[in-house]
Amino acid sequence: MKARIEITLKTGVLDPQGEAIRRALDGLGFEGVGGVRQGKLIEVELSETDPAAARQAAEQMCEKLLANTVIERYSVEIV
Amino acid sequence: MKARIEITLKTGVLDPQGEAIRRALDGLGFEGVGGVRQGKLIEVELSETDPAAARQAAEQMCEKLLANTVIERYSVEIV
Repeated sequence: MKARIEITLKTGVLDPQGEAIRRALDGLGFEGVGGVRQGKLIEVELSETDPAAARQAAEQMCEKLLANTVIERYSVEIV
Repeated sequence: MKARIEITLKTGVLDPQGEAIRRALDGLGFEGVGGVRQGKLIEVELSETDPAAARQAAEQMCEKLLANTVIERYSVEIV
């Protein structure tokens, strides 16, 4: 199975990388661009065949390594 | 409208960041982890109200700034 993990900054946490992108888009002449937020997308191949167990493993990976849960939230999709 | 842009490395392009994650997961005792790929997730708020125009603008942003189309592919979802 494959776990598709999205990690994004929590609402209210400053995102300087997103802000840099916003300014660059502005500088390139794109109009009507409001806020920009950048997150991470991590795809993990798992040998686990049970979707529930795969999801649990992926969530453990987020808690222990992939996400900084103080400032980031994660969502896991099993595909 | 909001454009949700996913940028991932094309198949076959080496992903050292993903490989580093795989090794770290392995070191933490996670079993059955195959390949890991890391990509980017960018959310752009657009004042554009026409979905087709918003998609076109987001694709232009990918071509001109957000993605390196030599090694990365992007997908745009308008939400």
